[in-house]
Amino acid sequence: MRNILIIGAGKSTSSLIRYLSEKSKTENLNLIVADKSIDIAKQMIHGFENTEALELDIFNTEDRKKAIQNATIVISMLPARFHVEVAKDCLAFGKNMVTASYVSEDMQKLDEDVKAKGLTFMNEIGVDPGIDHMSAMKVIDEIKHNGGKILMFESFTGGLVAPESDDNLWNYKFTWNPRNVVVAGQGGAAEFIQEGKYKYIPYQRLFRRTEFLEVPGYGRFEGLANRNSLAYRSVYGLEDIKTIYRGTLRRVGFSRAWNVFVQLGMTDDTYTLQNSEQMSYRDFVNSFLPYSPYDSVELKLRHALKLDQDDLLWDKLVELDLFNATKKIGLKNATPAQALQKILEEKWTLKPEDKDMIVMYHKFGYEINGEKKQIDSTMVSIGENQKYTAMAKTVGIPVGIACLKILNEEITMPGVLRPIHKEIYEPVLKELEDYNIIFNEEEKEYKGYNPDKI
Amino acid sequence: MRNILIIGAGKSTSSLIRYLSEKSKTENLNLIVADKSIDIAKQMIHGFENTEALELDIFNTEDRKKAIQNATIVISMLPARFHVEVAKDCLAFGKNMVTASYVSEDMQKLDEDVKAKGLTFMNEIGVDPGIDHMSAMKVIDEIKHNGGKILMFESFTGGLVAPESDDNLWNYKFTWNPRNVVVAGQGGAAEFIQEGKYKYIPYQRLFRRTEFLEVPGYGRFEGLANRNSLAYRSVYGLEDIKTIYRGTLRRVGFSRAWNVFVQLGMTDDTYTLQNSEQMSYRDFVNSFLPYSPYDSVELKLRHALKLDQDDLLWDKLVELDLFNATKKIGLKNATPAQALQKILEEKWTLKPEDKDMIVMYHKFGYEINGEKKQIDSTMVSIGENQKYTAMAKTVGIPVGIACLKILNEEITMPGVLRPIHKEIYEPVLKELEDYNIIFNEEEKEYKGYNPDKI
Repeated sequence: MRNILIIGAGKSTSSLIRYLSEKSKTENLNLIVADKSIDIAKQMIHGFENTEALELDIFNTEDRKKAIQNATIVISMLPARFHVEVAKDCLAFGKNMVTASYVSEDMQKLDEDVKAKGLTFMNEIGVDPGIDHMSAMKVIDEIKHNGGKILMFESFTGGLVAPESDDNLWNYKFTWNPRNVVVAGQGGAAEFIQEGKYKYIPYQRLFRRTEFLEVPGYGRFEGLANRNSLAYRSVYGLEDIKTIYRGTLRRVGFSRAWNVFVQLGMTDDTYTLQNSEQMSYRDFVNSFLPYSPYDSVELKLRHALKLDQDDLLWDKLVELDLFNATKKIGLKNATPAQALQKILEEKWTLKPEDKDMIVMYHKFGYEINGEKKQIDSTMVSIGENQKYTAMAKTVGIPVGIACLKILNEEITMPGVLRPIHKEIYEPVLKELEDYNIIFNEEEKEYKGYNPDKI
Repeated sequence: MRNILIIGAGKSTSSLIRYLSEKSKTENLNLIVADKSIDIAKQMIHGFENTEALELDIFNTEDRKKAIQNATIVISMLPARFHVEVAKDCLAFGKNMVTASYVSEDMQKLDEDVKAKGLTFMNEIGVDPGIDHMSAMKVIDEIKHNGGKILMFESFTGGLVAPESDDNLWNYKFTWNPRNVVVAGQGGAAEFIQEGKYKYIPYQRLFRRTEFLEVPGYGRFEGLANRNSLAYRSVYGLEDIKTIYRGTLRRVGFSRAWNVFVQLGMTDDTYTLQNSEQMSYRDFVNSFLPYSPYDSVELKLRHALKLDQDDLLWDKLVELDLFNATKKIGLKNATPAQALQKILEEKWTLKPEDKDMIVMYHKFGYEINGEKKQIDSTMVSIGENQKYTAMAKTVGIPVGIACLKILNEEITMPGVLRPIHKEIYEPVLKELEDYNIIFNEEEKEYKGYNPDKI
């Protein structure tokens, strides 16, 4: 019996546990699902064979060490900042480890020791980071292998509502942590490079600098820049690339409407509103507009943001009940971001029958034999239901696959790793296809910028 | 002989030293001007009688204590964060103290001990804070004394270029620390109250929420909100006031043009630009705009910010040479804010013969005998030259007056103080008139909001 210790039994572990449990008989696995709350752990393993729940407070050093010592391999599904404690124990007890999180500085520091012990600490093997790395590196390596030179790499991922459950004007519902969506893009300018020119987008312009993308069979989306695209140059071995841009996908029109919140100051999370509990939604909007004893909140907002009266954007705001004078925020000492989240959650929470969707879009521009070409690679994954969401599936299954392949010594590369190496991404991507996580790669005409030369 | 120790011999001490030196014979004063740099201290006292320079590193505890022990009274003109060390020594050696800075939390904590020793630590007695407190409290106390109730208090201060030296399209030059001007308004929303409604303005809207003010004899100005107006309610004893708003003055049109920098992201001080040293002014602008192989930086900027081609604002940008493709930023690892400062300093630095100007505008709305009234109080001070600037004068002279009045026991109130008490502000304001720092108080019709009731 091989013991797989999964630490943290949050929502994203549903598909992971199902995947590993389904393999448990043939692969001789025993899953130990550990969580601070034994009830949550029990709930997550309910109905799955070869699983057991364990109550574990990772801050209890003794318990943590004992659990890790007892495991054959460890998967940490904890929030990213807690991985390194688990990692140090794994190093001490000679256990391999898997996480879906970005490699932190502290994690990177363990690299030499991990290598010295011949261990594999596989990180960034969820969806984003994870599937994005693997699917991009596959095409990049192929182009390079064929003698091509990469000119451009753009990559977008979005967690959205599935088309069959898409029933609001924003074409959006919260499919993950709402708070992260409300404060997204804050804390620094987005930085990237286009045709060799460094470009910076401050938060106040971020939602007005989108571009449109068409995903075959799923229609149009818009992409907005992530904070740091430049770091991917060294990660992907694209040091000399002229254009690199990573972004987030939304349905067309979302960002322009979201910009209303940004401009008014409703996404600010750095101070608390006076009397937020008793504030109506209308009061909330009004607090960001000049005082007037007569003019309506509606007209003041239209004037402040220069919105025409027949702008479709307006209906998006009305749909949120933003001008309702009786509904209260009802939160004590709320920041504007918390108040906004409250308003949005009322409309953007998935209904029990709703499904989510993960969309990924890569563009690769390259030159080969003096000719410029382009490959677009897209993937869409739709959730089964509210437990086995597209998010849980695309995070959990690659983690499970990697775990098993390390256990079976199909992946043996040592060190603190990302799945950017062919010996890792190739078998993982192949098995992901069995779970309908499939990239559609398409040759396109390389358009570049201003193809009409006007 | 009474020893006045002035710690810190920065630009703002010129008028202070002159004021005290002029009084030194009749008042029996000896000025000890201490600075980390003996040369700067010597330069500042050059030509003034009864002064001496002292080399003093305030982090050298022994030297600092010795200097303070030897003084009759201490004036700290150091950056605000260094006052508290000086204050603790003053407390230990039983010396009174004067500063022009905001009372810090650490300073406030000394209040009980200062009172117990019967000492006076006078703070916030420069221009802003300082003259603003005194001139406002005078009117507030008068209104209250006459049985009036304060409904509204708005207060604006600006450090500007004098009309006779005003020769650019922005009607602005740097008269103080340029860096503070470039990053002004960042770090949190402006918060105030209007007719009982709390209002918040985020940084991205700050420069579009101005109001106009007319100063008799000096034309129109615009006021933009300071970060925290609400704290003044308790300081000024206006807890129940319905409208309180503090702001900064600029000439009309400045803010709308400045907003271009804000929107593009040029005032960001949180990250460094790639290759900033070799970047031309034009490259700098372009780095905040989308890539295009053909479209001009000018048209991209106009389009991004929806500027008409004949907008006067445009000439303000051109005047700064913002689109110059040969002038280099020339600073290594510059933040956008540092690069912008470099560009602005080239045009907005005072010429040797230029003069600066301090403008203050208070509006007091009040109700008395069932009638609503308004008093507007304005003050303009013009600098003599680049040494005895309006800024140095309005900061230094009230500090000097307060110092002398404490020394002569005309001000005897103990504690960590602000000049908000009649026994302090009345004699200081009176003497300030000798230096042509005079408030023009005018009864006005109380207009309130929407006087036409439309």
